[in-house]
Amino acid sequence: MVEIRELADGDWPQVWPIIREVVLAGDTFTYDPGLTAEQARELWVKPAPGRTVVAHDGGAIVATAQMGANRAGPGSHVATASFMVASAGRGQGIGGALVRDALDWARAQGFAGMQFNAVAASNVSAVELYQRLGFTIIGTVPGAFEHPTQGRVGLHVMYAPLEP
Amino acid sequence: MVEIRELADGDWPQVWPIIREVVLAGDTFTYDPGLTAEQARELWVKPAPGRTVVAHDGGAIVATAQMGANRAGPGSHVATASFMVASAGRGQGIGGALVRDALDWARAQGFAGMQFNAVAASNVSAVELYQRLGFTIIGTVPGAFEHPTQGRVGLHVMYAPLEP
Repeated sequence: MVEIRELADGDWPQVWPIIREVVLAGDTFTYDPGLTAEQARELWVKPAPGRTVVAHDGGAIVATAQMGANRAGPGSHVATASFMVASAGRGQGIGGALVRDALDWARAQGFAGMQFNAVAASNVSAVELYQRLGFTIIGTVPGAFEHPTQGRVGLHVMYAPLEP
Repeated sequence: MVEIRELADGDWPQVWPIIREVVLAGDTFTYDPGLTAEQARELWVKPAPGRTVVAHDGGAIVATAQMGANRAGPGSHVATASFMVASAGRGQGIGGALVRDALDWARAQGFAGMQFNAVAASNVSAVELYQRLGFTIIGTVPGAFEHPTQGRVGLHVMYAPLEP
């Protein structure tokens, strides 16, 4: 059974290897593969009003998510979120649990919707998961993601409205 | 006749009032209206490999643009750019000159395309200008922009491919 909670002070040494694994694979995130631990922490650990969480699966941290406003000022009523699951934790519904948790959080914060800015079209399992949870593909920027084996694939913008 | 050149050291005192005016109007950019000069400089002045330019119209700076990679890592082959024209400089084709300059720069840098992430649907003159210059609307995030008088309007994602 997966438990999701806010990132605590001692968690980073377990979170950084998950981020490093996902970024080095280069098949889902538009992050620099040469990202240092310090840069990753800056990108991933969001102080309030943002939020970073971890998912435990019987002890070790197996996944992490971060969320907050997608834009500032006149765009700040729409949330965004990002999710990373360690390869060892995949196929167990942890990604879905994290997305549901992020949607619940965003709804409670009063956001009008949640937007994902750059979902690689090749990441079919994520796209289908997001669609099951209420997201639609708003549009696809052609060839905007350089996949390590498939070449240039589209980047979806996805959105889910949130009812109060 | 408008002249476009890279931002020089002494330009900021003329650039900041343009940014402040645009951000305070709140009808085009998803920037925090409470943005300080220091935060604006951080957002707007892009060191290489990015680029920030200013447009002169017979002396005073009347517009500015910034450009660079839209994303990192596997998304770094697509450029983005932002444009601000002082109210006193509008209706003279300066915005179009800045967009063409940014497209020329991005093509010369080898970018595969240029993406705008958040164009307020209410900013019809900008949307039409971008379309004339080769951009299409990839999709529109519904209600993602809080316009000061029109309420929530869509935010377009726009894209133009760049031929080498």
